[in-house]
Amino acid sequence: MKVLAIDPGYGRCGVAVLEKNGGGKEILLYSACIETSAHNQFADRLSQVANECVRLIREYSPDCIALEKLYFQTNQKTAMRVAEVRGALINTAQGAGIEIFEYTPGEVKSAAAGHGSADKKAVARMLHALIKIEKEITHDDEYDAIAIAVTHLSRARTT
Amino acid sequence: MKVLAIDPGYGRCGVAVLEKNGGGKEILLYSACIETSAHNQFADRLSQVANECVRLIREYSPDCIALEKLYFQTNQKTAMRVAEVRGALINTAQGAGIEIFEYTPGEVKSAAAGHGSADKKAVARMLHALIKIEKEITHDDEYDAIAIAVTHLSRARTT
Repeated sequence: MKVLAIDPGYGRCGVAVLEKNGGGKEILLYSACIETSAHNQFADRLSQVANECVRLIREYSPDCIALEKLYFQTNQKTAMRVAEVRGALINTAQGAGIEIFEYTPGEVKSAAAGHGSADKKAVARMLHALIKIEKEITHDDEYDAIAIAVTHLSRARTT
Repeated sequence: MKVLAIDPGYGRCGVAVLEKNGGGKEILLYSACIETSAHNQFADRLSQVANECVRLIREYSPDCIALEKLYFQTNQKTAMRVAEVRGALINTAQGAGIEIFEYTPGEVKSAAAGHGSADKKAVARMLHALIKIEKEITHDDEYDAIAIAVTHLSRARTT
């Protein structure tokens, strides 16, 4: 089972492709932080993120897509713009016939680090223990995407 | 100039295609209310709306797309889901190379009925006075989309 996990954003968007084969550790096939320029219009930034995800779908043929969903945030305008990115990704996944799963930040932290209030460092440490990561991770957004992927695979295991 | 205007929603989504030729009245080429079933998953409903808009883009070749944007709403979860639909539509427009314009509900009411707090009936009355509508409009969502189209064309005239 291969999952493309996305931590949606229009400035920075974490993406990760994680594979689970039989009983072994999950293997990280790809991770990155898609970055867009604040000089570009929002619609351009949104489509840059969506197009990169289309490219990843073509390259890795994931069985499903896992997204972080966030309903409440202090900056409502930012939350709406992130929701717009999420919508573009949901539609992209639908167009490719790939099932979408959504997880809240609390669910992701619980699955990746054992409790819903874990900090970023604790999550990163646990991810290195849980899965095979052979590359250097430079962005928090990459870790976030990997954590979403781990969340999905752990759910898929038990349900 | 031809505009495809959309009042985004995942349960009901108003759409209208309005054309302006020279000095005459705007002509309503098409309007409808796209309805999706609450029995379907959100991702299906979102892509049903987006696919219908792709069909309208192909059929009418609009010069631009006008969307209503709504940042603050009492039901935050609904607002987020509507934002997701908007994001799918923005990405669809980008993919088709069509410029997108966004208007707030206040801007739409001001342009269509003269003041930002006009009620739905006042907006509908003014729309019939302003543009040539040869079909029967049955849904408020259609009027909303027509009002968004009128807003865009009135802005385009003066800027």
